Amino acid sequence: MNHLSVNNLLSIQDLTLDDINLIFSLADSFKEVLQRPIKKVPTLRDVTIANLFFESSTRTRVSFELAEKRLSADIINFSTTQSSLSKGENLIDTVNNILAMKVDMIVVRHPYPGAAEFLSHHVNASIVNAGDGSHEHPTQALLDAYSIKERLGDIKNKKVLIVGDIKHSRVALSNIFCMQKLGAIVRVCGPSTLLPKYLNKLGVDVSLNLEESIKWCDVANILRVQFERQETKFFPSNREYAMLFGINSSHLNKNRDILLMHPGPINRGVEVTTDVIDSCNSIVLNQVENGVAIRMAILYLLAAKIKNTSI
Amino acid sequence: MNHLSVNNLLSIQDLTLDDINLIFSLADSFKEVLQRPIKKVPTLRDVTIANLFFESSTRTRVSFELAEKRLSADIINFSTTQSSLSKGENLIDTVNNILAMKVDMIVVRHPYPGAAEFLSHHVNASIVNAGDGSHEHPTQALLDAYSIKERLGDIKNKKVLIVGDIKHSRVALSNIFCMQKLGAIVRVCGPSTLLPKYLNKLGVDVSLNLEESIKWCDVANILRVQFERQETKFFPSNREYAMLFGINSSHLNKNRDILLMHPGPINRGVEVTTDVIDSCNSIVLNQVENGVAIRMAILYLLAAKIKNTSI
Amino acid sequence: MNHLSVNNLLSIQDLTLDDINLIFSLADSFKEVLQRPIKKVPTLRDVTIANLFFESSTRTRVSFELAEKRLSADIINFSTTQSSLSKGENLIDTVNNILAMKVDMIVVRHPYPGAAEFLSHHVNASIVNAGDGSHEHPTQALLDAYSIKERLGDIKNKKVLIVGDIKHSRVALSNIFCMQKLGAIVRVCGPSTLLPKYLNKLGVDVSLNLEESIKWCDVANILRVQFERQETKFFPSNREYAMLFGINSSHLNKNRDILLMHPGPINRGVEVTTDVIDSCNSIVLNQVENGVAIRMAILYLLAAKIKNTSI
Repeated sequence: MNHLSVNNLLSIQDLTLDDINLIFSLADSFKEVLQRPIKKVPTLRDVTIANLFFESSTRTRVSFELAEKRLSADIINFSTTQSSLSKGENLIDTVNNILAMKVDMIVVRHPYPGAAEFLSHHVNASIVNAGDGSHEHPTQALLDAYSIKERLGDIKNKKVLIVGDIKHSRVALSNIFCMQKLGAIVRVCGPSTLLPKYLNKLGVDVSLNLEESIKWCDVANILRVQFERQETKFFPSNREYAMLFGINSSHLNKNRDILLMHPGPINRGVEVTTDVIDSCNSIVLNQVENGVAIRMAILYLLAAKIKNTSI
Repeated sequence: MNHLSVNNLLSIQDLTLDDINLIFSLADSFKEVLQRPIKKVPTLRDVTIANLFFESSTRTRVSFELAEKRLSADIINFSTTQSSLSKGENLIDTVNNILAMKVDMIVVRHPYPGAAEFLSHHVNASIVNAGDGSHEHPTQALLDAYSIKERLGDIKNKKVLIVGDIKHSRVALSNIFCMQKLGAIVRVCGPSTLLPKYLNKLGVDVSLNLEESIKWCDVANILRVQFERQETKFFPSNREYAMLFGINSSHLNKNRDILLMHPGPINRGVEVTTDVIDSCNSIVLNQVENGVAIRMAILYLLAAKIKNTSI
Repeated sequence: MNHLSVNNLLSIQDLTLDDINLIFSLADSFKEVLQRPIKKVPTLRDVTIANLFFESSTRTRVSFELAEKRLSADIINFSTTQSSLSKGENLIDTVNNILAMKVDMIVVRHPYPGAAEFLSHHVNASIVNAGDGSHEHPTQALLDAYSIKERLGDIKNKKVLIVGDIKHSRVALSNIFCMQKLGAIVRVCGPSTLLPKYLNKLGVDVSLNLEESIKWCDVANILRVQFERQETKFFPSNREYAMLFGINSSHLNKNRDILLMHPGPINRGVEVTTDVIDSCNSIVLNQVENGVAIRMAILYLLAAKIKNTSI
């Protein structure tokens, strides 16, 4: 198979194992392109992509934008504050208006869970979910899995720990789905107030014991405490969080081979200490670098579906 | 004649009938370009355009930006919040600074009526008015007229109704001028508080009877209720507005051939119901699509004036 | 010598006289390019530049962006409000994330003095300081010096007066360093509350007498009153400031050959009257025009260092 089974990237759940492997193998090629002096390929010269960010973002927005530029796509950007959303227009009307201007693909970040999927049912364009509230962030999970694979060779049977604020994290949910599809054993660990009840149904281990979990795992994906998505306090103080669920050098000492990941932005001193996240166990910047290649692969493959071509 | 009579596009009033027909015929060509896989032409490679938006906008800003990109122009964007306007600089100084950097053309949206014309007297560049307060929005009127022509073949003697908030609408004023130049019979209809007194002097019919007006017309251009431009309330409630001046399926039943337009963004359920604006009588998305072609034509023709060439 | 002695442009203090002359001579070539119909050269096709503006800016941001576009660089923009700074991420993490996406150069404006230099010690990219709080604004000083040289032939032994709010001005400090390196005699003049005590150590004359200073100088660089950077009031009222330190036609009458400069944005009627700043003694718009050429030269030379080539 040399094309995706889907026309949109809404959720990791929609992807087959073949889809993921196809994305990874194409990302390998694009990663090689990104090492060249001229990092551009003309492949999407005939595609126009709109980046619709209804929530603030640095890294994801810039990563998509660079991926699009490297592929020579035409790009339209807009973010909430500049948009007519403040004039009370509904989401479908906003997007349909953009599409009427001959836009082929939409990259959308939205505070509401399900926004990307909702759009996919109502507009005629390829949709990439760049984060929908606390639901999914599929490109992040793909770049995370790709970064693990790059280091550990294979993900099958690897023990992946996700630490922290599972409840508010779209990264957590997408990672659980993605790692499981790739055969990893997934465990989550965090304060009980931040562990949603549905976790058992997802087939993941749940632990409240950080120390034991760190010793157990091959990879720890440390989530950001999502202060901005918490309306009430889920733990007494940052200091208490750091003491009970923050990762520090004492943990590292108990598992010298652990791979440490973080989707960013990092609250240094809260979910992880500076010495640990800057140590050689950390692959945080590799994740960012791989993000551009993964997004190039996804945009390329979805565009190929639009154009009815295969790679 | 193969060039415009004007050096700027400030107001529909400045345009001759030949100007409008020249824009329309060039828009036909560009619309054809927009159907191609690669939607770009290299015609404005030697032109730099600054988009100055002193008021928030989605569709107009994106439409101009796409038109400029399709023509391969160099583009500089800025909007109020990022600008030095907050530092107290006057408009002419801001624009002259941009121009000193070798910018050839300015697309400007500004909350003050007359801002574009004011600029044209004080700076040395070609100015396109992308909306000046409640005064004019000439590119909108041109794309509206072009969209009607596309459907009805000709505008001459067609009956065009403009419904709603005439008082705060730059779209209304530009449309009245444009439709009249093209030989249409224009009527406005809305709550008396939203019908300015100068309307009679413009040679348009004024009606308070929506039902009769809908039966009379070939085309109804439904204006957005400009909540954001109303300092006081001009009608008791949205619900009352919708009951008296909102267009719903009962109106559609009385005139099955009517063409329905809306400049967007739509307040669904206020000035028009969802079933009506999504019906096959509606050409709202055609308007948006044609907007890019019309703006390409205008930018192209004004650039030809700068370069002293003709098409 | 045909390369810069530095890998970053953080401060005028770091530059040698040869560096400045190299920048000026390359700016001459780029200024010629900017007169051509197609103002683009393909020289930085293989360079990606991120413009990080943590403070609002019109002219500097647009000037850098145009310089980058004219050089065909790939560009990533972001400003504070869109960024993850509001999520509490530290500056190094933000910048390292951008760099991990294969960005070669950072143009940074930041409200904190020393921000650009701080970054240069912690990230692996070429940094251009586009203004760091009230510290330095080296590209402004270079374009100012270039503009003087263009008019007066040489800067050596010319008498340069800097008038106004020295205390809050990064333009003042960079200009003092730059003019002195080029052999000018520098004097500052302003209200005593806006003259910092360290000025004597910099080897500049300090005067409270505007009238005498105007008669003395060849060039007056009139600073903007930085209302937005003053937490307390440093003078009783704008009117009093204008009376005592504002430049008006009576000053011009006493020195008919004076060259008048202003970094913008201008508070007309405060630091200078409208007739004076619009007179033929003013080279304000030449400064802006030269800014693009100077920034092209700097970006080009720093990129050559990255690529280990020389011009």
